[in-house]
Amino acid sequence: MAMIIDGKQIASEIREEIKSEAAALKERYGAVPGLAVVLVGDDPASAVYVRNKGRACEEVGFASFQHTLPAGTPMRELVSLVDELNARSDVDGILVQLPLPGHMDESAIIDRIDPGKDVDAFHPANVGKILIGDEKGFLPCTPQGCKVLINRAVPDLKGRHLVVVGRSNIVGKPMAAMMLQKKKDADCVVTVCHTAAPDISYYTRQADILVVAAGRPNTITGPMVKEGVVVIDVGMNRIAHPDDPSKTKLVGDVKFDEVEKLASAITPVPGGVGPMTIAMLLSNTLKAFRMHREGS
Amino acid sequence: MAMIIDGKQIASEIREEIKSEAAALKERYGAVPGLAVVLVGDDPASAVYVRNKGRACEEVGFASFQHTLPAGTPMRELVSLVDELNARSDVDGILVQLPLPGHMDESAIIDRIDPGKDVDAFHPANVGKILIGDEKGFLPCTPQGCKVLINRAVPDLKGRHLVVVGRSNIVGKPMAAMMLQKKKDADCVVTVCHTAAPDISYYTRQADILVVAAGRPNTITGPMVKEGVVVIDVGMNRIAHPDDPSKTKLVGDVKFDEVEKLASAITPVPGGVGPMTIAMLLSNTLKAFRMHREGS
Repeated sequence: MAMIIDGKQIASEIREEIKSEAAALKERYGAVPGLAVVLVGDDPASAVYVRNKGRACEEVGFASFQHTLPAGTPMRELVSLVDELNARSDVDGILVQLPLPGHMDESAIIDRIDPGKDVDAFHPANVGKILIGDEKGFLPCTPQGCKVLINRAVPDLKGRHLVVVGRSNIVGKPMAAMMLQKKKDADCVVTVCHTAAPDISYYTRQADILVVAAGRPNTITGPMVKEGVVVIDVGMNRIAHPDDPSKTKLVGDVKFDEVEKLASAITPVPGGVGPMTIAMLLSNTLKAFRMHREGS
Repeated sequence: MAMIIDGKQIASEIREEIKSEAAALKERYGAVPGLAVVLVGDDPASAVYVRNKGRACEEVGFASFQHTLPAGTPMRELVSLVDELNARSDVDGILVQLPLPGHMDESAIIDRIDPGKDVDAFHPANVGKILIGDEKGFLPCTPQGCKVLINRAVPDLKGRHLVVVGRSNIVGKPMAAMMLQKKKDADCVVTVCHTAAPDISYYTRQADILVVAAGRPNTITGPMVKEGVVVIDVGMNRIAHPDDPSKTKLVGDVKFDEVEKLASAITPVPGGVGPMTIAMLLSNTLKAFRMHREGS
């Protein structure tokens, strides 16, 4: 029986710490970290994410600036807004909610954000710093949240084999880049495997730490892991509820009941990685504020 | 008996192609690609590298601009020179030879180079593009050269297990980032292993393709590989000559005579990866010229 890694509890502790730090910073500077979130269009899921981010800011005492533009907004107007936010001294972090409407060039918008305010860490300069191991950049929120959970569950990672399933730009690739660094809280041998592999279980069975970000339920079953593995399940899949098909249920990428019997520790879905993402966004915004005020 | 991958021959073919393209571009634009190489101080090895790069430019019909500054040059003078080269329209590529003298901040200098002229691909924005898989950036010369050799030796890489030994910013990390991309000429399962692993042979024996960039002779011996592996040896180690200790000999990181019996293909040292590096520098400079003139 695995230890259940309580992401909800850990995220809540981190948010409390950030709240105290924000209060102390307000005392010192008469200002608080500010996060601007830009939403283009009226996708309901995106609107929920944006609202949650705004609420999370308020709860820790950050300033939150929400900008909603209609779906048909011309690209140049979004560019102007990003430029304005780049220039504003009360805005420490800028987040443009993705996906953008089809007529907009997402990578051009991401490139436009000042890397020092890019709290999503999608700008190439921040992605590069992850791979280089330069801590002056930001780490993307979801894999950073996974890393915090791994570091709490496994104090000494040196030479452990960490296997990442999935190679997205949002999770798999930056996760791998973070964990292979020659640093005390990383230093893993890292394998990235994916659907091109003839048999991913050949790799997943080797994992001391297994991070699953495949975007498909039941990607990892019991026979695919070794005993004692630490499992981080990044999946968020909404499926028909097994007991009542008129309802839905949120599940991860890991077949929890099977894998939990073999793992030494595992994140649940929901309540594992999910709550960490917004906590890391707040942490990045705090870091941005410090960089802007203190140059470090 | 392995096929010997003749990097010298392949590099020479690539240089011939670049020479023809440079001639065609000169016809079309009345201008040729230009590479500026900056050397600070009088390290003899660096001076040789810089001279070779200048000569390689001349051989393919590129313009070559060499800037040599004394070791005691203040940082701000080097910054001014980089700014000047960034602004010059006849300079397509800028390369600052590393290492810089101790009083200089290498990463600040690298950050200062226009990413569109950063033909060494050490700027964080270019490193980020490697991991993202954005082909508008540059690929660093040595791992790019390895990739060309791998692509010639193994036409279909999909799902093959590529193991990289070593995690330097110059070779191991970008090599891994390139080869895990979902692209026809990559698409490998990638493992990065290094000295923190209790036993690297556990990983190296799994490799279909093994890239060794450990910087130590005899890192890989016969029992550490599986039959049929393709081996790319990035090592360049100068050791005492076994037959005449008064002389030296250049060897790689792989125990060639043992591994060659098991591999299906292997690069020799010298004459394998080495000659590819400058060929890729020329290729990047050509790409930079095209980007500046043609915007693609």
